[in-house]
Amino acid sequence: MGKYLDQINAPKDIKSLTLAQLDKLASEIREEIITTVAHNGGHLAPNLGVVELTLALHYVFRTPVDKIIWDVGHQCYGHKLITGRREQFNTLRRYGGLSGFPRPDESEHDAFATGHSSTSISAALGMALARDYKRENSSVVAVIGDGAMTGGMAFEALNHAGHLKTDLIVVLNDNEMSISHNVGAMSGYLSRIRTDPKYSKSKDEIEQLLRRIPSIGSTVLKVAERLKDGLKYLMVPGMIFEELGFTYLGPIDGHNIGPMLVTLEQAKNLGGPVLVHVITEKGRGYGPAVQKADKFHGIGPFDIDSGDCLKKSDVSTYTEVFGNTLTRLAGDNPDIIAITAAMCSGTGLSDFAQKFPKRFFDVGIAEQHAVTMAAGIAKSGLRPVVAVYSTFLQRAYDQIIHDVCLQNLPVVFAVDRGGIVGDDGPTHHGVFDYSFLRSIPNITIMAPADENELQHMLFTAIKQNGPCALRYPRGTGVGVVLDAVPAPITVGEAEVITEGKDITLLAVGNMVQVARKAGVMLKEQGILATVINARFVKPLDENCIIKHAMRTGRVITIEENVLAGGFGAAVLELLQAAGYTGIQVKSIGIPDDFVEHGTQSELRRKYGLIPENVVDTALSMINRRKIKGIK
Amino acid sequence: MGKYLDQINAPKDIKSLTLAQLDKLASEIREEIITTVAHNGGHLAPNLGVVELTLALHYVFRTPVDKIIWDVGHQCYGHKLITGRREQFNTLRRYGGLSGFPRPDESEHDAFATGHSSTSISAALGMALARDYKRENSSVVAVIGDGAMTGGMAFEALNHAGHLKTDLIVVLNDNEMSISHNVGAMSGYLSRIRTDPKYSKSKDEIEQLLRRIPSIGSTVLKVAERLKDGLKYLMVPGMIFEELGFTYLGPIDGHNIGPMLVTLEQAKNLGGPVLVHVITEKGRGYGPAVQKADKFHGIGPFDIDSGDCLKKSDVSTYTEVFGNTLTRLAGDNPDIIAITAAMCSGTGLSDFAQKFPKRFFDVGIAEQHAVTMAAGIAKSGLRPVVAVYSTFLQRAYDQIIHDVCLQNLPVVFAVDRGGIVGDDGPTHHGVFDYSFLRSIPNITIMAPADENELQHMLFTAIKQNGPCALRYPRGTGVGVVLDAVPAPITVGEAEVITEGKDITLLAVGNMVQVARKAGVMLKEQGILATVINARFVKPLDENCIIKHAMRTGRVITIEENVLAGGFGAAVLELLQAAGYTGIQVKSIGIPDDFVEHGTQSELRRKYGLIPENVVDTALSMINRRKIKGIK
Repeated sequence: MGKYLDQINAPKDIKSLTLAQLDKLASEIREEIITTVAHNGGHLAPNLGVVELTLALHYVFRTPVDKIIWDVGHQCYGHKLITGRREQFNTLRRYGGLSGFPRPDESEHDAFATGHSSTSISAALGMALARDYKRENSSVVAVIGDGAMTGGMAFEALNHAGHLKTDLIVVLNDNEMSISHNVGAMSGYLSRIRTDPKYSKSKDEIEQLLRRIPSIGSTVLKVAERLKDGLKYLMVPGMIFEELGFTYLGPIDGHNIGPMLVTLEQAKNLGGPVLVHVITEKGRGYGPAVQKADKFHGIGPFDIDSGDCLKKSDVSTYTEVFGNTLTRLAGDNPDIIAITAAMCSGTGLSDFAQKFPKRFFDVGIAEQHAVTMAAGIAKSGLRPVVAVYSTFLQRAYDQIIHDVCLQNLPVVFAVDRGGIVGDDGPTHHGVFDYSFLRSIPNITIMAPADENELQHMLFTAIKQNGPCALRYPRGTGVGVVLDAVPAPITVGEAEVITEGKDITLLAVGNMVQVARKAGVMLKEQGILATVINARFVKPLDENCIIKHAMRTGRVITIEENVLAGGFGAAVLELLQAAGYTGIQVKSIGIPDDFVEHGTQSELRRKYGLIPENVVDTALSMINRRKIKGIK
Repeated sequence: MGKYLDQINAPKDIKSLTLAQLDKLASEIREEIITTVAHNGGHLAPNLGVVELTLALHYVFRTPVDKIIWDVGHQCYGHKLITGRREQFNTLRRYGGLSGFPRPDESEHDAFATGHSSTSISAALGMALARDYKRENSSVVAVIGDGAMTGGMAFEALNHAGHLKTDLIVVLNDNEMSISHNVGAMSGYLSRIRTDPKYSKSKDEIEQLLRRIPSIGSTVLKVAERLKDGLKYLMVPGMIFEELGFTYLGPIDGHNIGPMLVTLEQAKNLGGPVLVHVITEKGRGYGPAVQKADKFHGIGPFDIDSGDCLKKSDVSTYTEVFGNTLTRLAGDNPDIIAITAAMCSGTGLSDFAQKFPKRFFDVGIAEQHAVTMAAGIAKSGLRPVVAVYSTFLQRAYDQIIHDVCLQNLPVVFAVDRGGIVGDDGPTHHGVFDYSFLRSIPNITIMAPADENELQHMLFTAIKQNGPCALRYPRGTGVGVVLDAVPAPITVGEAEVITEGKDITLLAVGNMVQVARKAGVMLKEQGILATVINARFVKPLDENCIIKHAMRTGRVITIEENVLAGGFGAAVLELLQAAGYTGIQVKSIGIPDDFVEHGTQSELRRKYGLIPENVVDTALSMINRRKIKGIK
């Protein structure tokens, strides 16, 4: 007998299945997900956790008329498999293939694009309000994890939705995890709901007890009345949500489809804002992912039998070098405090957390709070280091300006995953940070050319008496030998790698390696390039840049950031402010487009962030100069 | 007898006063605040509401050892008056004078700079953690309004603080208002605490009732036990805060100093996170401010007797023209939805809200949610217009990228208070928006030269099939006559105002008037300028700019935005990408510094955003060209 999954071409196809068949389908989906992620990498544990929930949702609701918005979106694989994308599923996260996140341009069943956390309730509320205004008849469902609930904007949306009383269903997918284990009082609250018997339903028992209270004098009658009112807290475990205007249903088992169908149907018919509390297990159905849900949250290709990662490089990642260096520096400097927003392992802080538990804070998925808390810590004379992915730092843009830079506080931003991140795609590339950070006064921005420079820059950043961002890419370093001891570098000083009279290649961060190779390739063609490692996006090494720009008359800037307002723009601003016209400048970087998913090397090739393109650009500039005046 | 206030040179001076004397002091402070704000303008109602609370806090705590962090900071006038700044208080909000917000560089009693909402708990938690780590002994107090509580980052911080169990006091200043009346379920919850008798304390009564329950069989014993547990919800009105790990105290009267002293002392000694719920009245003690707390939230100079504003201009503000135009357009276009984050009146939407209540949403102080909710609405085919101050839009930077622009959704951002805002100072200037918006793909950015162009641009923005930001300044327009009917302008097309061979003055937004005047002044000196109203920061009118840049050989860009990554940088990028070297460009804009407070005209003069500076710059460029090669 064939697989049920092979017959599912649209969500409606699951509606004729029996509960037993749905369970079988769930197993098939799990197998498909495990097999594909083992090959392509991806978010394994979150997807395995929501297979039954996905089927239950699609059984009760009818997308695309009804809307399902997947918060973060890293749990949409099952959804993709049953919404007509089964055949392409093996292209998951591959260049030109299926995205690992919901994409409305991929399917009408993807109601809203997600990637970052805690957006789903806001988007869903917007859709619900539009539906009401247009007098349409449909359900809008936000599926949000308990981790994403710690993000402030989820609360903003709950607070607003509870006030408006619009029909809206929030499915709280509670797996006691965000990426690492959850922190936060809300998490503790949910845990009490799950485990404490006094939170569980007992309406009948309570009413029985109440009937035993004897008739009492009228003076205490009102007290008795209040007592009865108070009982709702006993009967309704999700009292916080009730107080915020939601009808709470749950907690229910997220791996038992039958009862889920009943509860979701109830939620659909209730009206008003409803929160359905579903308990799931991250990694469900694949032992290694259950045991190490953190590791299997997002993972590269792995061996299914052992759960071991394939293709482990011998070269350390930037993340590892950052983590090791910070741990080492913290041993000497008791002022260092490390902060992460639910990315302890991802940002390389696991060792630090273990060695210095009193100096490590995981604030949950709450970048805004992380940055302003760091400002408070810095104001108190300590040296907080906020380790965060570039793309998530966007969440704290105002806090960087308003709480850190305005007060010129010494907060270090360790900006990991700067530039092109690869498979996760447009929601996750860190290609805006030079631009959005550079326009803020008081901040120093540096980017290391290799992992060795990273350690020196981290040392330097922590010694700075003001805000400092240190930006480095995802993935392995260059493979250089690390100096024995981190040492300071001079702030605002670039490094001239080679000198040549024909052209200046001015690169920053990981693009320095590209410039270096381009320099060698140009030399083979008889063109002598000055290759500069800018080191600092802010402040620029004005003297060095101007000197070499004047000397060679031609400059190519190279950065893994959008060109608009980025490093190249900073160089143009510098030359303009200094009054130097007549210098030919070409900027290589990301054009004014969102970058798709694919491997880092595929995407770098696409955008010309490779030595060959630098060489071509240099040749065109030199030729053009020879035939002067031609554009 | 002299005033008590005259003898208060530091907070310790209030500690010898009796309760009656403190009440007298409160009256004196109120009088001083009313008199000064009537002259200088400022945040009247919030400050009048917290006079007694301020005295109680300084009576119980000892700053600067203890830290008081004023959320938003617009309620710190009383605090400033008793922390050694009485003599300078008449310079409030004046250029070179006292700031209207807490500023650590102004006094050691200002623990943390604020201006934007909802940051205080995060900053306070950071300070509390630093204190614990350094084993110091002090209290940290965040004073936050119920309005600011709707901001997500306040929840992020509560959630984290409740989890950590650090000693931390949060004073919830509940006046049922943010700037307008509050929205949100949390607000409803607080209101129930205040007014519903079943939420008020009744521990004794309840215990009395419990004793009347007869002895019952062992089978229901555990139920009775659970019943008792449930009673905490009756006894503790702030149950949400209790569930989040805070000890809740209150609600208490924020105008009765005696009980406040007792409760704050209790909070100080309790340990762990404590929330003190204080009920205050906005505008307290000044009739017009109590009756119109919205109008008197932030106000210009006014007549104390009547409460009428002085210096009313006959010229409409940009805000008014925006509001009127949107209301008018909404009459014809049923797809228009207006969204504000607690700034209905400030952004000019009061009329719209009244005329189209079903199409107007005030989300509370929740810019992140506002933007993503708008994305959800736009995804559903409607045309949301998010009206927001430039400085607060910084809060939603990631949402603009991730939820709006990545999906290319037609959300209109009506970015009010773009550029220099004046008296509110560095926390409030909207001088980063061109830079942070311009680097995002898919967005169109326009800025009108006058209020007439604003209406045409709004019309155009709403017709766009993608995200669009329309940025305009605080204050009155130019005073031009408004065309009878809003009409479309061509996206990406600049307007050439005058043509001249010597130099191109390329301005955007309100700086077009400056360029126009400079053009006239230059003509008087025999220099012929091309004056261009760029209209669009993105996309630039490439052909027009290149043509005139080539023709004149000299370009001055003028913008009321930071130079780093701003409009001038965009022009440099354009010329570079097009391969045009040898064109002299000078950019006029805000340098790489935070802009202080002062009047808009003082600050514009300071930064050279005036015709005289454009003329000087033009002259220097023309002279320099004559003596070629000299920098």
